[in-house]
Amino acid sequence: MTVSERTLSLSDHGRAPTVALQALDETGQMRETLICGEHPLTLYLDKRELVTLMTLGTHPEDLALGWLRNQRIVTSIDAIAAVQVDWDTESVAITSRSLAEHGRTLWTGQEAAALDARLGQRTVTTGCGQGTVYGDLMSTLDIVQWGDHAGLTRDAVYSVIDQVRGHDTLYKQAGAVHACALFSQAQPGLPQLLRFVEDVGRHNAVDAIAGWMWREGLSGDDLVFYTTGRLTSEMVIKCAQMRIPVLMSRSGLTGMGHALAEQLGLTMFARCQGRHYLLYTGADRLLDSPLSPV
Amino acid sequence: MTVSERTLSLSDHGRAPTVALQALDETGQMRETLICGEHPLTLYLDKRELVTLMTLGTHPEDLALGWLRNQRIVTSIDAIAAVQVDWDTESVAITSRSLAEHGRTLWTGQEAAALDARLGQRTVTTGCGQGTVYGDLMSTLDIVQWGDHAGLTRDAVYSVIDQVRGHDTLYKQAGAVHACALFSQAQPGLPQLLRFVEDVGRHNAVDAIAGWMWREGLSGDDLVFYTTGRLTSEMVIKCAQMRIPVLMSRSGLTGMGHALAEQLGLTMFARCQGRHYLLYTGADRLLDSPLSPV
Repeated sequence: MTVSERTLSLSDHGRAPTVALQALDETGQMRETLICGEHPLTLYLDKRELVTLMTLGTHPEDLALGWLRNQRIVTSIDAIAAVQVDWDTESVAITSRSLAEHGRTLWTGQEAAALDARLGQRTVTTGCGQGTVYGDLMSTLDIVQWGDHAGLTRDAVYSVIDQVRGHDTLYKQAGAVHACALFSQAQPGLPQLLRFVEDVGRHNAVDAIAGWMWREGLSGDDLVFYTTGRLTSEMVIKCAQMRIPVLMSRSGLTGMGHALAEQLGLTMFARCQGRHYLLYTGADRLLDSPLSPV
Repeated sequence: MTVSERTLSLSDHGRAPTVALQALDETGQMRETLICGEHPLTLYLDKRELVTLMTLGTHPEDLALGWLRNQRIVTSIDAIAAVQVDWDTESVAITSRSLAEHGRTLWTGQEAAALDARLGQRTVTTGCGQGTVYGDLMSTLDIVQWGDHAGLTRDAVYSVIDQVRGHDTLYKQAGAVHACALFSQAQPGLPQLLRFVEDVGRHNAVDAIAGWMWREGLSGDDLVFYTTGRLTSEMVIKCAQMRIPVLMSRSGLTGMGHALAEQLGLTMFARCQGRHYLLYTGADRLLDSPLSPV
């Protein structure tokens, strides 16, 4: 059996995203409103507790996978045999292939010390939600290399903006969420929406996308990442880890987000709204840029 | 010398919040834009590393104090002798009074084991930035008691909204920040703005307010807390810890934020914009509410 044929056992326990709540408006009238859920989900890897995330809970399996991936706790999805979410205990049990097939947990092998060290350090970032980057993540980023990318036309940028705006979102119903979306530029023509995830923390949304890409065996090389949130350092780092060369945000960016995008050769658009955008880095990927590159 | 007369040695090393960066707009023109800074700041307590926060950096001393307070690492400001920020090393050295006056660090006394245990657990929350609540914080919240509060008129609510809107904000210049503001209702009349803090993470902003309140010896009993960000569980927990009974947000709330506010007896307004708001909990504090309480 080859690695790619190995099965990954996944539960399918996404929650309903909203609850109805009554509120008194300024005229004194009681109104029914929709509110986003926020639920603790504790991740266990081979029965060891890692972290508790607060999440909307619609994509808990992908969130768990993407968190492990983006924190570099596990470096290959082939190392994972099962992801089982149980909302009764607000937990997700991730079982390594090592444990499932050989009875040996990840916490006992040669890698255990390195794993412990990575979990021991923490950086609490500016991002929404889940803003914790463990260990030596930042220091390993310079090894990220980009594949060839055909580049984007301005119409492609506008198409991403339009497709996101036209999407039926939880945000329109209940607010209090950030969205992340993934588009393909692999085919000629306009970008195709591959995945759209909302969560009460935008880092959950990007991690859920990372988990899905992992499951699908999808490389980031020909993809465009869109977020409603700010492009802070951690968002840029996560996209770089997923090897996605083009980042777009409806919102702004930070100085460190900018510096990292420049250093990593990413193309970064901010303030993408309607027919407006600001292109901060990597203008060489904009095919019909009317002027010289940034 | 009484405790309250003890001096706290503080550096005053707030950073300039923005940098100018060029960007290419959709017409191909190069434009100068202002971008918010985002800087790592590593907290050391009696020379032991605690955490690295990503921050705008305008209020680093208050941020360090408020983080220690809101994470319940240190339970009284009188236990702290000095807070010294050094941007060259991107660090802040917090020195306990125990170390400064008796040569004994907090990591060696009777409390050290409890301190270690609190630091060992983590919950990564949905909040913007710094979304990490350590240890047993949630479980101790039921002991929070509120003092008497005179209540708010609807005009007071509108006054808070207006004062925030009229404030000269970094957000208007550069975006990518959340603001938190603190208002007093102690005096008759409309609420008075006491403190306004913006940061790339809204949890930094609320922590910087908590640190300032600590330094000022200010109880939350007669205060109103306003944030541009969402009222997630962690925001509610932090306000409850500061004993602030009234929370207002320009944005939304989550189900868990709502449940906690109700449980803790907080008054919670969301969607505060212009002359609109939604009152979700604690309507008994709205003095001229035209209808029955929520």
